Amino acid sequence: MLVSCCYEIPIFLSKKKNFKTYIALFNSELFTLTYGALVTQLCKDYENDEEVNKQLDKMGYNIGVRLIEDFLARSSVGRCHDFRETADVIAKVAFKMYLGVTPSVTNWSPAGDEFSLILESNPLVDFVELPDNHSNLVYSSLLCGVLRGALEMVQMAVDVRFAQDTLRGDSVTEIRMKFIKRIEENLPAGDE
Amino acid sequence: MLVSCCYEIPIFLSKKKNFKTYIALFNSELFTLTYGALVTQLCKDYENDEEVNKQLDKMGYNIGVRLIEDFLARSSVGRCHDFRETADVIAKVAFKMYLGVTPSVTNWSPAGDEFSLILESNPLVDFVELPDNHSNLVYSSLLCGVLRGALEMVQMAVDVRFAQDTLRGDSVTEIRMKFIKRIEENLPAGDE
Repeated sequence: MLVSCCYEIPIFLSKKKNFKTYIALFNSELFTLTYGALVTQLCKDYENDEEVNKQLDKMGYNIGVRLIEDFLARSSVGRCHDFRETADVIAKVAFKMYLGVTPSVTNWSPAGDEFSLILESNPLVDFVELPDNHSNLVYSSLLCGVLRGALEMVQMAVDVRFAQDTLRGDSVTEIRMKFIKRIEENLPAGDE
Repeated sequence: MLVSCCYEIPIFLSKKKNFKTYIALFNSELFTLTYGALVTQLCKDYENDEEVNKQLDKMGYNIGVRLIEDFLARSSVGRCHDFRETADVIAKVAFKMYLGVTPSVTNWSPAGDEFSLILESNPLVDFVELPDNHSNLVYSSLLCGVLRGALEMVQMAVDVRFAQDTLRGDSVTEIRMKFIKRIEENLPAGDE
């Protein structure tokens, strides 16, 4: 049994903030295939696709919560002034940095609180085909969780979901992001 | 339930060999954290560390079996003439390409059938600390499987194991590789 821990991921993660300063650049195929192994394992573990989607999102959240620190350190990006700037940073800096692709930012809602990231290609789904009995699987759900978790750490509550997915026959992959609220800075008890 | 399939991974993998020709380069942190999520999930699923190690190795094998094709296409590496050449290609081309690091090749056995890859840093274990109750976990076992699977596809049976691991307090990570035999080319029935 694992030791109890508030998150699922950080059980193996050092509390030390010794981020590597070198930038390791490499090809995505090993990552893509490893992600495939993770999804496959979850499909064995959980009853239905909805549970798998939820689990991937949750894992992604825990990853995002950690990844943001690395992102801020590497990118030297400062506080965004509005949601449009946030959208640009996500698309042009974050996606480029961690997935090697730059989605376009589009389909803004009139109120400016909602937009889409359109990915011409999604590295996570290279080589992937969904079997017929997994028609409800949102294969790349991890990404939604990563975005949600990372933004929460910079005081933004967002809703993130896949609106289109090439794996389901759509011509592009569309991640829809909706701003919910700014989170008050409220450090958990015991933290400094 | 998943559809039956000879491998564990390829259930989500297209049979189409439409490898992307672009080279996506990106940072390893998202991969590292996703790998952490996979290991954590397996620790929940299996009774003991030995089973998790075995499972990671098996997943790695299935990944290696796929990755080799991508590797050969990208690297333009031809058939290696001996195990020493193979060792160099693994260290200088494959590790560099997929993990962004170049291990040194060392500790050759007198017979030339065994060597070590010494990794000064292992991207898979950035941010990672093993809890005390996982002292038998070989966290990066996936890599052993990847190497074994990939080499099997080029007709080399090898034994791969971690001899040292920074996660267990060793000063470097050492992967020990032993040549077992050359596999006769024997296409499965039905394949061309």
